[in-house]
Amino acid sequence: MKKSFGPKTLVYPTPVWIVGTYDKDGKPNVMTIAWGGICCSVPPCVAISLRKATYSYGNITERKAFTVNVPSEAHAREADYFGLVSGRDTDKFSATGLTPIRSDLVDAPYLNEFPLILECRVIHSYEIGSHTQFIGEIVDVKAEESVLGEKGLPVIEKVKPLVFSAGRRAYYKVGDYIGDAFSIGKGMQ
Amino acid sequence: MKKSFGPKTLVYPTPVWIVGTYDKDGKPNVMTIAWGGICCSVPPCVAISLRKATYSYGNITERKAFTVNVPSEAHAREADYFGLVSGRDTDKFSATGLTPIRSDLVDAPYLNEFPLILECRVIHSYEIGSHTQFIGEIVDVKAEESVLGEKGLPVIEKVKPLVFSAGRRAYYKVGDYIGDAFSIGKGMQ
Repeated sequence: MKKSFGPKTLVYPTPVWIVGTYDKDGKPNVMTIAWGGICCSVPPCVAISLRKATYSYGNITERKAFTVNVPSEAHAREADYFGLVSGRDTDKFSATGLTPIRSDLVDAPYLNEFPLILECRVIHSYEIGSHTQFIGEIVDVKAEESVLGEKGLPVIEKVKPLVFSAGRRAYYKVGDYIGDAFSIGKGMQ
Repeated sequence: MKKSFGPKTLVYPTPVWIVGTYDKDGKPNVMTIAWGGICCSVPPCVAISLRKATYSYGNITERKAFTVNVPSEAHAREADYFGLVSGRDTDKFSATGLTPIRSDLVDAPYLNEFPLILECRVIHSYEIGSHTQFIGEIVDVKAEESVLGEKGLPVIEKVKPLVFSAGRRAYYKVGDYIGDAFSIGKGMQ
């Protein structure tokens, strides 16, 4: 018998991603989100949701582009900080010492120090309620050499991304490998 | 200097969620997704993306409702199995011994044995490309007593959700607590 908790955004896991944008004057900004996810394979797309009041909302609306920057465990404090203050009145880069790099492919900056980033151009937006969802086509994935695995792709064990817990409002590590997808369920029946 | 990997759905973390639906005859089905995420706080909404060819796509289109069922580590094999076969020609419940329960709130079934579930009614859909995104308003969150923490809410340490790694296509556990959100970044500057 399950207990009812009413309408809530209470589900696990959710990501911790840093969204990179430029404002109308070309000033870079980054903000933290947990409301997002991959939403299409072909073309590869990612959805992110932001409140209208955020500085990044205006930036994305204007520039039609954003990056998704995946922090490593070592950047947990910076990732949290990026969600605490607004780019309207703060230079989040000088405060953290992290470096915005101009994307060659989309009109948005990415974080030099983060291990894995997506460069995205906005192909759709939808106002849901408190949040507006932007769908970005992933034009390129970039990663540091240091997080590549045997097959030459960025692996989760080296990227060490954060998991957001909406219940406790806290960050967690990714833990142990359980098994391969499209594999461990075979023979079940 | 980052290495470029081209347009890919390669980002961490992504969830492992089981989507529950009824077909036109009232037969329950479940399928596994990793392309999804919370997309609005007020009203609370979750976005899930499915290929048109899936049996669940037709079900959601017809019933305008779905559930999101969060598997625990103990259900990794079943979660994988639900993504391997189609509800068109398989009864996934008899194969796994898991039990579909009719939601009182939306026209969709949820899994009795999974610790945390969302009951959703579809408020929007958008065809992106290979995948269609459905936005579901979360009408209720339900959880087993066994996964509740000190404050009476379902906690990630007890739910033990799976993390999908799109790189290796594998399942991972959620690991150790790092720190509190909206807290550990304070004082940075």
